[in-house]
Amino acid sequence: MGVCPTVAGMERPREHQLPTTGGDAAPVPTAPPAREPSHAERCRTLVAGEQRGALSTLAADPAGYPFGSVVSFGLADDGDPLFFVSTMAEHTQNALRDPRASLLLTEPVPDSADPLASGRVTLLGLLAPVADDDRDVARARYLEANPAASYYIDFGDFTFLRLTVDHIRYVGGYGRMSWVDAAAYKRAEPDPLADAAAGIIAHMNEDHADAQVLFCRHFAGLADTTAASMSAVDRYGFDMVAVSAEHRTPVRLAFPAECFTGDEVRKAMVEMVGEARAAG
Amino acid sequence: MGVCPTVAGMERPREHQLPTTGGDAAPVPTAPPAREPSHAERCRTLVAGEQRGALSTLAADPAGYPFGSVVSFGLADDGDPLFFVSTMAEHTQNALRDPRASLLLTEPVPDSADPLASGRVTLLGLLAPVADDDRDVARARYLEANPAASYYIDFGDFTFLRLTVDHIRYVGGYGRMSWVDAAAYKRAEPDPLADAAAGIIAHMNEDHADAQVLFCRHFAGLADTTAASMSAVDRYGFDMVAVSAEHRTPVRLAFPAECFTGDEVRKAMVEMVGEARAAG
Repeated sequence: MGVCPTVAGMERPREHQLPTTGGDAAPVPTAPPAREPSHAERCRTLVAGEQRGALSTLAADPAGYPFGSVVSFGLADDGDPLFFVSTMAEHTQNALRDPRASLLLTEPVPDSADPLASGRVTLLGLLAPVADDDRDVARARYLEANPAASYYIDFGDFTFLRLTVDHIRYVGGYGRMSWVDAAAYKRAEPDPLADAAAGIIAHMNEDHADAQVLFCRHFAGLADTTAASMSAVDRYGFDMVAVSAEHRTPVRLAFPAECFTGDEVRKAMVEMVGEARAAG
Repeated sequence: MGVCPTVAGMERPREHQLPTTGGDAAPVPTAPPAREPSHAERCRTLVAGEQRGALSTLAADPAGYPFGSVVSFGLADDGDPLFFVSTMAEHTQNALRDPRASLLLTEPVPDSADPLASGRVTLLGLLAPVADDDRDVARARYLEANPAASYYIDFGDFTFLRLTVDHIRYVGGYGRMSWVDAAAYKRAEPDPLADAAAGIIAHMNEDHADAQVLFCRHFAGLADTTAASMSAVDRYGFDMVAVSAEHRTPVRLAFPAECFTGDEVRKAMVEMVGEARAAG
């Protein structure tokens, strides 16, 4: 978000106006219910952020074994993955014999984090050559996601494949998982804030920790919050961890209206600060 | 390797004693043939360095689709992966119905690098519950690789699985791939320098670039080498890229004898520097 003078005014919140400890003075939450992205939306966002995954195909030898391999991919408009693979590669030969396949994608995991707490999605479907009429689009989409492939994209012994997704398994971390309807996945949009999210989170945690404490106290009713940090943000709202002397509490707050850009997030934050201060 | 006073003496090689440009004065290589780790050894080393991979199992619904999921694992003595999984998880249910499975592991890829140039291995085999008698060993090995699992390792709804590896596919990068004999994999040892390699490479490139130029000129006969950098090191030797005004040439040199520690690498380098100087 870069420099943010308006929200920066919140670096010294008027704490004397806020409830401090104990629950007696906790304000009634006034923000709208905290809508979250659907699992279909989370899958589209995760898939849109990756260019590489683990493809599972069915081997001929050893017969019928599921075979994992590394692939790069691009995306069709509806979220179907598009591949550019050597015709001699194991996974290509496997797909031509039996098209059943899946593509596993995982969110990047910081070195210090628990890898099983990260989001991942398995797109299952039929993996087959792209029709001649669709080859130009597939080529463009693959190159868009994998510009380094330009030096071999026109090799004769490579071919384009498309995974026509028909089943989707989503795992958002421990205990947050579901089968996602394939039609809902194809209709869903990647979150418009996906590329901006890391910058927004860093900015909010570096420069606006006090605003987050105010949010947790006012909107979430956690009057004893002494520190707060943002862990995620999307078009509908944001997640924080509220810290008090005794607890760490996850908090989800919705924006007053959907945000499509970092600038809209800034304005929403300013509005929320104003609302919290007015109520304080 | 830390401080390395003896090889550090090579920071100012006696260049006047060395051939400089052109091929006429190129010395005859005198080092032993550059043995490399076998693909079985490279697989064991790669597997030993990872704790997380992509498991492929066979789904019940959609029937027979290969299903990719994220798993953490430990290793049995023979390199078979050991898993600790929820009995409710898709991959566990899949394996109990049909044990055919594979585990895909990939070397870490620096952000700037081509992901398809990295090493990866697919271990195929039968995935089945660990026998009661082997449970303590499986538990210890899994925890060794995944210490964070200690807080749920004794949950009742989790179980240990073992992938008994019977086929192995290795891809070392573009054009370097093979099916690896499973018995050879089980006999092979992870490279003893695997953990030290990154430090050795950094040290050689930061402090002993001149020694590497000497090696390329003397042992590889590349008399016009003006710069050289190490890209890999293992028990048998090391890989460099030799740079001249016109070329970048990959160079593989063997150690005089196998090296099992960073200290032995240091001594081998000193010996090679001495040999190259004596011949110069």
